[in-house]
Amino acid sequence: MAVDSSPMRRPGGRNRDVTERLLAAALEILADKGIDGLQYEELASRAQVGRATVYRRWPKRDDLVREVLGRFAELSVPIDDTGEIVRDLTAFLLAFAEAAASASGRAMLQLLLGRADDSDEVHRLGRELLDRRTDDLQRRLDRATEAGQLPPTDAPFVNMMLAGPVQWFVLRRARPFTRDDAHEIVELVVTGLWRQGAD
Amino acid sequence: MAVDSSPMRRPGGRNRDVTERLLAAALEILADKGIDGLQYEELASRAQVGRATVYRRWPKRDDLVREVLGRFAELSVPIDDTGEIVRDLTAFLLAFAEAAASASGRAMLQLLLGRADDSDEVHRLGRELLDRRTDDLQRRLDRATEAGQLPPTDAPFVNMMLAGPVQWFVLRRARPFTRDDAHEIVELVVTGLWRQGAD
Repeated sequence: MAVDSSPMRRPGGRNRDVTERLLAAALEILADKGIDGLQYEELASRAQVGRATVYRRWPKRDDLVREVLGRFAELSVPIDDTGEIVRDLTAFLLAFAEAAASASGRAMLQLLLGRADDSDEVHRLGRELLDRRTDDLQRRLDRATEAGQLPPTDAPFVNMMLAGPVQWFVLRRARPFTRDDAHEIVELVVTGLWRQGAD
Repeated sequence: MAVDSSPMRRPGGRNRDVTERLLAAALEILADKGIDGLQYEELASRAQVGRATVYRRWPKRDDLVREVLGRFAELSVPIDDTGEIVRDLTAFLLAFAEAAASASGRAMLQLLLGRADDSDEVHRLGRELLDRRTDDLQRRLDRATEAGQLPPTDAPFVNMMLAGPVQWFVLRRARPFTRDDAHEIVELVVTGLWRQGAD
């Protein structure tokens, strides 16, 4: 891959490559240093473009952060529908564990960890991205309810009960997260939901 | 409370006060800026002591981090034994939610989020502190099993299933975590554990 290493050269017809390179570098820096550590000078240097190129694309840093995280939200964790809810949620958790352990997953968590007083706008954004994923989950849960595989459930609660433990596991980094781990969590939550529904 | 605001004054007979002030300030900085942002110059200035005082107490930064986090682990989240496991776990989760939302709780999570390659020692330490809490939980769970309130359970798994969702909830900061929230999580996990045990 030919990468232009001259810092001040204009991107010319390779806008898309440059954008990709910048977003990847921004994600790396976010994961390393958090939002406050994301400086345009370092970003330009890592992506091997001129600083003006960065400012032209994202005059405000919040816009850059939004695009990086939006990209992350699009890439991550679709929910299958094989007709079998336990299997689909298990696959969902395996994919989520991988995303959570990645540089972008850590950047996302870093974002949520940010202090309330200096990053409300960005924090709200991270929450919106998470909520978008919750809508997909609700649709899948509703189909499972129709199929008699679950009582009526509330996606934000189910998501918290499933993704919360996975996040916890991944942060400890004691060992890799396996399909058996995912299955154990899903089984416990699904059986618990049935019992709660029956009370 | 009389606080010495002269930066270079020696602590004299007030060693303990100075240590407390330093640990509190170190925790604040950890929560704000992470491990890498914990600089002795800023720490001394925030705690209103001379820099030499800091170096004398903790020649290595890892020792300081260890003491700050050890203090956090000691302060946080005892598990009651009222004889009623659902009630005790609910109280445990309420206390954990408060600890997780605090400056020190965020600092602890920040620590776990650190990059694998540059903070292995400190990361391992954070994990050890978490494991110490798991031992208490195991003893409480074993007594519940003896009383017929739970099947035999594994504290690290139960802790993940309880504390993971609470951490997830707290990070979103959408609304305060209530006793009803704690109770809902505990009920689901306890009923799920019974069903898993019955399979």
